[in-house]
Amino acid sequence: MEPSPALPSLGFVGLGAMGAPMARNLLAAGYPVTVHARRHVLVRPLAEGGARAGESPADVAAHSTIVHVMVTDTAAVEEVVLGPRGIIQGAQRDTIVVDHSTISPSGSKRIAERLRAHGIEMMDAPVSGGIDGAAAGTLAIMAGGSEESFARCLPVFRVLGKTIVHIGPNGAGLVAKACNQIALIVNQLGAAEAMLLAERSGLDPMRVKEALMGGFAASKILDVQAPKMIRRDFSGKIESRLHYKDILIALEMAHELGIELPASALASKILTALQQRGGARHDSAAVFTIIDS
Amino acid sequence: MEPSPALPSLGFVGLGAMGAPMARNLLAAGYPVTVHARRHVLVRPLAEGGARAGESPADVAAHSTIVHVMVTDTAAVEEVVLGPRGIIQGAQRDTIVVDHSTISPSGSKRIAERLRAHGIEMMDAPVSGGIDGAAAGTLAIMAGGSEESFARCLPVFRVLGKTIVHIGPNGAGLVAKACNQIALIVNQLGAAEAMLLAERSGLDPMRVKEALMGGFAASKILDVQAPKMIRRDFSGKIESRLHYKDILIALEMAHELGIELPASALASKILTALQQRGGARHDSAAVFTIIDS
Repeated sequence: MEPSPALPSLGFVGLGAMGAPMARNLLAAGYPVTVHARRHVLVRPLAEGGARAGESPADVAAHSTIVHVMVTDTAAVEEVVLGPRGIIQGAQRDTIVVDHSTISPSGSKRIAERLRAHGIEMMDAPVSGGIDGAAAGTLAIMAGGSEESFARCLPVFRVLGKTIVHIGPNGAGLVAKACNQIALIVNQLGAAEAMLLAERSGLDPMRVKEALMGGFAASKILDVQAPKMIRRDFSGKIESRLHYKDILIALEMAHELGIELPASALASKILTALQQRGGARHDSAAVFTIIDS
Repeated sequence: MEPSPALPSLGFVGLGAMGAPMARNLLAAGYPVTVHARRHVLVRPLAEGGARAGESPADVAAHSTIVHVMVTDTAAVEEVVLGPRGIIQGAQRDTIVVDHSTISPSGSKRIAERLRAHGIEMMDAPVSGGIDGAAAGTLAIMAGGSEESFARCLPVFRVLGKTIVHIGPNGAGLVAKACNQIALIVNQLGAAEAMLLAERSGLDPMRVKEALMGGFAASKILDVQAPKMIRRDFSGKIESRLHYKDILIALEMAHELGIELPASALASKILTALQQRGGARHDSAAVFTIIDS
């Protein structure tokens, strides 16, 4: 299918567990998409699906008016955006870099300033909803950046997500994402302790979970993570090392603001113990094993 | 309206914030209902709605085949069930006492044994869903007791709630409720810390909450409690003293089982501080004020 000439050319850098299904959705919506990943093996499935394979982030940018980035941490974003073969080397004026990675807001703002000096706009647009949400195009997208950039990106965001909120200027999306991770990661402790008490009391924990989902304890995390805890199935989707990284970002922000977040601090301790005991690549639901020990 | 002769006569003892709307729903469904409350002023609205006013819990029991109880703590349940004018004095054999109160499972089992010696069955059937859920008849009901009692109560439970789960034998419903309160109360800390970080970072916390509700951080508690935190409106529905009581029950159970629940323990500390600072009658969302201090 020849892509519609009305649709802007998109780029996608980072084709991991989240990036790949997001890029696939953009292709399926008819956008011309140029992709790149540091692990070249990840490119082929997208190329077979109609994407152009870019040689580098710079090459992706040279063919795109909006360049999406979905990588792991601040260093990785700096490399693909500002590095020697980075987006900044190939992007034209008026390009928008949309970074979906979860990194620190201050790091993201620094990168946005560097880009702006070259006439390139940036949005931080971290997401929540996991791999299933990415595949279904139902992510929550928390966007930070100018009104104008948001308006230009909105049609694309609508392909990727269902709940799309322009939180504020550059960095604001990442602050919202930190809030998201606090709520989610702390809630996960509550789910783990509830399921542990049910199990140790001799109840059927799945039956308890079913009852809880009908009342005020209902949450997406309880629904998705409790069964993994009960089955001890941590062959995970969102690896605990990512939540560990995220909660440290949130605590660093709190420290800079001079506020204490005691439940987040407790969660960071439990996630630290999980990393030390070899659970870094396990699903984050494995915090259950630390509480159950 | 003359009640249908096919419907059993019900009793309801305890007409507080939760009990009154539950009793009203039973009346509205056509059941003959005899009610009683220690605070007599609470009886009149129900009597005006067609309920018979019982002089005592014993009198309620004498007119009912299923007697519902919804009071605050173990001592109150013991009084209305086993006290000198208690249900046990008026109930016939085959009566079922359905206790919706949130009390300790061990206390409830003791009461059930005392009743069983008189040929009276008991179910613990604590609920979740708050005052709105009680009014709408959409509560989650976690039931503990015999299969036979559950089968007899099920049509009545269907009037009161939407998610109805028979968890196990006597006491099992209350264990599930303790799990419910752990998940809910710990989650509330996560919601509070997320909203605090959003606010102190200069974002619009309602916009952040909206974004979070679209992803993995979505929960009933975030949805209902975050706006109260943001507006500092703690003219509460579920008073914090009740959550304080509930988390202590859960921690006592954990202690008896030899397990540690670190997030629940943290929640109990924060709720203790809230009690000490005059927040016992405030909505439980007021834990926000302890974290924000």
